[in-house]
Amino acid sequence: MASPSVLTPQSEDFPKWYQDVVAKAELADNGPVRGTMVIRPYGYAIWERIQSAIDERIKRTGAQNAYFPLFIPESYLSKEAEHVEGFSPELAVVTHAGGEELAEPIVVRPTSETVIGEFMAKWIQSYRDLPLLLNQWANVVRWELRPRLFLRSSEFLWQEGHTAHASAADASAYAMRIHLQVYNDFLEKILAVPTFLGIKPPSERFAGATNTMTCEGMMRDGKALQMATSHELGQNFSRAFDIYYQSEEGQAQLCFTTSWGASTRLVGGLIMAHGDDNGLVLPPAVAPWVVVVVAVREDADVLTACQRLNGALAAQGVRTQIDDGRRGSFGRRVTHWEMKGVPVRVEVGPRDLAQGLVTVVRRDTGEKFAVPLSEVVEVVQRLADEVQSDMYVAAMSFRDARTHDVASLDAAISTAQSGFARLAWDLVGEGGEGRLKAEAMTVRCLQRADGSIPENEREEGLVAIIAKSY
Amino acid sequence: MASPSVLTPQSEDFPKWYQDVVAKAELADNGPVRGTMVIRPYGYAIWERIQSAIDERIKRTGAQNAYFPLFIPESYLSKEAEHVEGFSPELAVVTHAGGEELAEPIVVRPTSETVIGEFMAKWIQSYRDLPLLLNQWANVVRWELRPRLFLRSSEFLWQEGHTAHASAADASAYAMRIHLQVYNDFLEKILAVPTFLGIKPPSERFAGATNTMTCEGMMRDGKALQMATSHELGQNFSRAFDIYYQSEEGQAQLCFTTSWGASTRLVGGLIMAHGDDNGLVLPPAVAPWVVVVVAVREDADVLTACQRLNGALAAQGVRTQIDDGRRGSFGRRVTHWEMKGVPVRVEVGPRDLAQGLVTVVRRDTGEKFAVPLSEVVEVVQRLADEVQSDMYVAAMSFRDARTHDVASLDAAISTAQSGFARLAWDLVGEGGEGRLKAEAMTVRCLQRADGSIPENEREEGLVAIIAKSY
Repeated sequence: MASPSVLTPQSEDFPKWYQDVVAKAELADNGPVRGTMVIRPYGYAIWERIQSAIDERIKRTGAQNAYFPLFIPESYLSKEAEHVEGFSPELAVVTHAGGEELAEPIVVRPTSETVIGEFMAKWIQSYRDLPLLLNQWANVVRWELRPRLFLRSSEFLWQEGHTAHASAADASAYAMRIHLQVYNDFLEKILAVPTFLGIKPPSERFAGATNTMTCEGMMRDGKALQMATSHELGQNFSRAFDIYYQSEEGQAQLCFTTSWGASTRLVGGLIMAHGDDNGLVLPPAVAPWVVVVVAVREDADVLTACQRLNGALAAQGVRTQIDDGRRGSFGRRVTHWEMKGVPVRVEVGPRDLAQGLVTVVRRDTGEKFAVPLSEVVEVVQRLADEVQSDMYVAAMSFRDARTHDVASLDAAISTAQSGFARLAWDLVGEGGEGRLKAEAMTVRCLQRADGSIPENEREEGLVAIIAKSY
Repeated sequence: MASPSVLTPQSEDFPKWYQDVVAKAELADNGPVRGTMVIRPYGYAIWERIQSAIDERIKRTGAQNAYFPLFIPESYLSKEAEHVEGFSPELAVVTHAGGEELAEPIVVRPTSETVIGEFMAKWIQSYRDLPLLLNQWANVVRWELRPRLFLRSSEFLWQEGHTAHASAADASAYAMRIHLQVYNDFLEKILAVPTFLGIKPPSERFAGATNTMTCEGMMRDGKALQMATSHELGQNFSRAFDIYYQSEEGQAQLCFTTSWGASTRLVGGLIMAHGDDNGLVLPPAVAPWVVVVVAVREDADVLTACQRLNGALAAQGVRTQIDDGRRGSFGRRVTHWEMKGVPVRVEVGPRDLAQGLVTVVRRDTGEKFAVPLSEVVEVVQRLADEVQSDMYVAAMSFRDARTHDVASLDAAISTAQSGFARLAWDLVGEGGEGRLKAEAMTVRCLQRADGSIPENEREEGLVAIIAKSY
């Protein structure tokens, strides 16, 4: 068991708090090669839950998983010059293999657009093959000089979706479906993170995209984190990779493509959206254990009661685990489970037990309840649902309290020191993005006044969300 | 839909048959970099089912998943010289990243023993931290000059388990548990592949291992395929990586470690263990679709009946899909579904339908049944169970018919031209393995006479299984 000690408070040094939580909740370590990351079992269990929730939603949209190679010939990346420009300084290059120097250097994939484009061109013959909806779970490499665990690492894990469609309208509708029914639904229901949905201004678009949609979450320091993005690539990619189909009328037509991704960055977002000065706070839907049953001290009756409760919870499908009291003082162990963010703690002590009671504690609010033994399973199950929805509401309140409508760029810059500013996109104006950049701020996204996602940045009446960001 | 045509018969050219099936069942393609592989959606769906069945079993043994970096400093691989000797010509080396030449070259992991060893040494303090049971799902790279899809590729997907224990006995018992309760159970129940379980002779052990256990399956050409291996590493690895623990008595002790793995090679084994001259034959437990409901021809009543049946099957949790009759002739479509190995085909035609019947066809045996509409769901569910167990029995019969007890090395060499020879290990004798090698054969494993796994190669009365292999 880790030796938990007090964290650096969030208000004092948020980046240090983050680093401490990642280490003390045993989520991840730095790998031996600069910028790489070891995801420890507890961190990986969270990622597995994220992965399965996203994967399930992706499959529901009709996409199929596949796997494309880690290695890409260097020449591929020059096919789409505009695209590669965004990446070249970030590439890791293999020059030797099989004991000799390679004739052509090989790039470790920074994304798989190019190699997937090549195979789409091969697999798509006619309109009957469309839409082609592919997704891949993989590791990718983008060299990082200033890495931060989960948020920016040289190697990270992600899913990247790549689809080809017969029309711009179909591509656009599918990208929107992914954005709302996969990403936003997952963020709301599983991570309990409310986000601002919108499109990126042209300056912030993915290289080669005609439109980039984003979900921007607010972290506990008031900065924004881009949680997932969905891109419409128009015919730019299909032109570079010859992705044609034969239409019903027998004519060769270029496909319209999309791509969309979410990564282990989401774990960083989860930590920063909900964590507090005692450590991680996990929504039950993503927590490796929803409950920990804690023996207040080593005692035969207490242990028996813990085992019974643990068994009864497990029998109802609750992810639960037992702390038998052998590893350190009660206080230290409570600190440990708080650090790990386990949503519900059931404390079993000899005095309570004599009265047929246990103490149930919510990690998110700290509330404690004396609960009769016979009602624990039911109370815990109800509480898990409550915690899940309350955490979403709390994150929403926090965000709303730190989001202000402003009427000038100056006011936006002032507001975005510690939160989000909403400013009419017109008022950002020429040079406005440059001024924001000088303040380490950006337009995170453009929305309609009602919060919905616009078709493009030229719509009337759009609002810009302005913030500092990760 | 692919255009299926007759395959090269297995008896004529087995390697060509294999290559044809992989292409025509749309399982995989060669990647652009030599030796790499694109796993197509149908092949990947099979891998996902393999992965989840193995993962579930691994977790049941108490191991936890984690993720370690793709990149390993070159210096790590020299720490365990004996280990690296097995790999060095196979390494892919990154020399440039971030736009410049790296001070120390980086190796793309051929396996993660070294980096995991490093972190085990960091995480293990006392006997309380043991056993430490880790598993990782990842891609690894071993440069291949003569690649074959799934069987030998420069990049492949696998799981690698790495564990540390306080005693040799605990390490040994855990490795045995993985071998029997994870690998063998999975191979029997999910892949329907019977294997010979045993230990490798010292000459065939994993570099650095004190014992290597294997599961050797027989392919349809009588050759052996090593489906999974489990290694006891004694204290060799812990010595190289300083993996110590403090015992209850307060003394620093070296851990005993194990490692064990299975890879996308299993897909190759699945193809070659069950396939026939019409293509893939999938056991229902691993088939992406257990059933395909085929409209004999495009017809409104037929389509309605197909949709009803498909819905009724799906409602019972059967993985099913519909062939609405729009893509080619009935014959071509049947050939297509046979190529894909879908275990059960439900054919719905207008004449049968008029009598309230459909035709149900087993892929493995080709048997056809006329089934009343009202009984289809029940019949298909029963049939899926039957096909699963019958395929195991059929593979066992095939293997047994081609496995012979022999009394001399000469007889073994003759038998192993087209199957497995069982020869007393004593009779292999000095130089025997050399003679086998000259015939492109090896001792695949050593077993006790009753088929159980011996502790080491020095036990009395062991039997050597001799075969050609992949």
